[in-house]
Amino acid sequence: MPSFHPPLRTLMGPGPSDVHPRVLAAMAQPTIGHLDPAFVDLMDDIKALLRRTFRTDNDITFPISAPGSVGMEACFVNLVEPGDTVIVCRNGVFGGRMKENVERAGGTAVIVDDPWTRAVDPQRLEDALKAHPQARLVAFVMAETSTGALSDARTLVDIAHRHDALAIVDAVTALGGVELDVDGWGIDAIYSGSQKCLSCPPGLSPVSFSERALARVRARTTPVQSWFLDLNLVLGYWSGAGRRSYHHTAPVNALYGLHEALVMLHEEGLEAAWARHALHHRALRAGLPALGLELLGADGERLPQLNVVGIPSGVDDARVRQTLLATHGVEIGAGLGEFAGKAWRIGLMGQSASQRHVLTCLSALGSALAAQGREVDTGAALAAAGRVYAAA
Amino acid sequence: MPSFHPPLRTLMGPGPSDVHPRVLAAMAQPTIGHLDPAFVDLMDDIKALLRRTFRTDNDITFPISAPGSVGMEACFVNLVEPGDTVIVCRNGVFGGRMKENVERAGGTAVIVDDPWTRAVDPQRLEDALKAHPQARLVAFVMAETSTGALSDARTLVDIAHRHDALAIVDAVTALGGVELDVDGWGIDAIYSGSQKCLSCPPGLSPVSFSERALARVRARTTPVQSWFLDLNLVLGYWSGAGRRSYHHTAPVNALYGLHEALVMLHEEGLEAAWARHALHHRALRAGLPALGLELLGADGERLPQLNVVGIPSGVDDARVRQTLLATHGVEIGAGLGEFAGKAWRIGLMGQSASQRHVLTCLSALGSALAAQGREVDTGAALAAAGRVYAAA
Repeated sequence: MPSFHPPLRTLMGPGPSDVHPRVLAAMAQPTIGHLDPAFVDLMDDIKALLRRTFRTDNDITFPISAPGSVGMEACFVNLVEPGDTVIVCRNGVFGGRMKENVERAGGTAVIVDDPWTRAVDPQRLEDALKAHPQARLVAFVMAETSTGALSDARTLVDIAHRHDALAIVDAVTALGGVELDVDGWGIDAIYSGSQKCLSCPPGLSPVSFSERALARVRARTTPVQSWFLDLNLVLGYWSGAGRRSYHHTAPVNALYGLHEALVMLHEEGLEAAWARHALHHRALRAGLPALGLELLGADGERLPQLNVVGIPSGVDDARVRQTLLATHGVEIGAGLGEFAGKAWRIGLMGQSASQRHVLTCLSALGSALAAQGREVDTGAALAAAGRVYAAA
Repeated sequence: MPSFHPPLRTLMGPGPSDVHPRVLAAMAQPTIGHLDPAFVDLMDDIKALLRRTFRTDNDITFPISAPGSVGMEACFVNLVEPGDTVIVCRNGVFGGRMKENVERAGGTAVIVDDPWTRAVDPQRLEDALKAHPQARLVAFVMAETSTGALSDARTLVDIAHRHDALAIVDAVTALGGVELDVDGWGIDAIYSGSQKCLSCPPGLSPVSFSERALARVRARTTPVQSWFLDLNLVLGYWSGAGRRSYHHTAPVNALYGLHEALVMLHEEGLEAAWARHALHHRALRAGLPALGLELLGADGERLPQLNVVGIPSGVDDARVRQTLLATHGVEIGAGLGEFAGKAWRIGLMGQSASQRHVLTCLSALGSALAAQGREVDTGAALAAAGRVYAAA
């Protein structure tokens, strides 16, 4: 069986995003032992960099050795006890996954539904908390990867706290792409993924837990159902205090990559990265109308890093994506759940938030749509995007 | 904060083992999407290579996107239902971890203890099954990384089946280093890790489930407690049949590495790799007496790939390991559990099973022990190892 050599791609889907050669080169450095003093120092550096990225002083801030879905599961299995009521705000696929996690942890999920593409409505959360005063937890997705909606995490966390509930925030697609302030907003537990705006390969899930959340975990009367995710055990491995106790074997080379990606993010500056994501979103949005396309969602609620574009009737979804991939090497995302066949998801995340990506995507989309006989003016699309850049 | 550059090491601990530059280079190839047709083909190739490595035709043979501990948890959360009785054979640390997993899944673990460094005693397992006829599962560690003991998986699985129990086998350290035949021996569920005899970086856990095991999972009356590890869901992602359904985002670059490592293993040949591990084990063992050292354990029960060496009284454990690491760049493992401070664990796994590794380790150990005033004859140790190679 021959070695594998990936095709050349430009990644503009819902993740993974393009990974910088510095990160790839970091991951190709020789593996060392996970208890090597040099590796323990690296773990400390990663924790410090993640704290800066989440804007938190939380001691318990580290990358779980598995994808973002496992970061979600870590929050729920540690914070939900059998019989707990949890308010889950659902405005896309990932809110539905939260419900699954609550129920498998023995809790009861009270669902607050909002329309797809829309932000979570604070009033509906407030109403649900009034109707279910026993709720101990509120969970929501800050940046819904399935719909492109950005919710107001600060306001939602405030409401949860006013009703004596803790807040779990899904920041898989949010972290590094839009403003996020874990301590300033009082977020109790948060998880993210490496392959979105951090521009690492997939496989790691940065998490952070507040002291309030840890107190809840310590006060549990039932054991955490997962051995791997039990914070009481994993902390001995990632905790900064004294000797490390063996828990599992950390994914050494993946952590080399995460470290380098975080170094690059902070070389740029967190606020500069947020502004960069916003700029390229504006440019993409400006170019779409000349291709007969528009973003779904409502003003002020759209993620810059994940753009959900309605598929015009008569356009062959699969054929467009196939042409983009095979002819142009450009990957965009299919619609997920309710949006299958109805929308595309164009990611401008991390290294994929660049002028090169926006212009490549507009010209490739223009070409693929023209090949289906659509009336498009690709030149006008590129010019509209160019005007955004000229004004910036 | 500067980039991280690992020190140069020779990895001879209990894992990770040294990773070949071909595998490191494979991981540094550009990330592509996890739903890219080229990546879906890679997933199929990895499944085929893992089947050859496990010696199985099991359709459900794939790498879990997390370390070996999670492979263990996947087997238990899918196969144990609340109220089940599980016989856990414990002859080291990892049997103890199995007990934890059984209990967190709501089962009752019946422990069959064997002395550390010894193989699991088939008679004790038989007695336990007679005493607990309601037991539906037997679990044991084929290659105990904490003690260096190799158990007779074929015989233990036979006994389990004769008592109508399924067998879960921990092959984290076994796979690729010693004979293993999942179908020939009738193993029902098995998990391994990427960072031992497969010589990948840590972070992936190859697993395989027989049809009998899957029938048990399908017949569950309670949901699997983990969303991430629920085989009913993950199969839609890794299954070969038709369209993939999105489950989580696979760790793309880590899978590039696993593929290349498996290609290299089968270029060498599985039986040749087992023979190579055995040869270097014999050479290491031949060299130890001249350094005043000897292997723990019993003849016929020692793993070639993980050598547990008693620390002579008067030798400063930590100082020897520190000298090996700082002066020679050689990592060996500390003792774990009962063996902390009493034994070293010398890995000869995957790429670390080579003549260079054996001779480097003997000469570095000789130097470190001489620095503590021990009477050692390093020349004789190297000569004894050399005679093994000359005779091979």
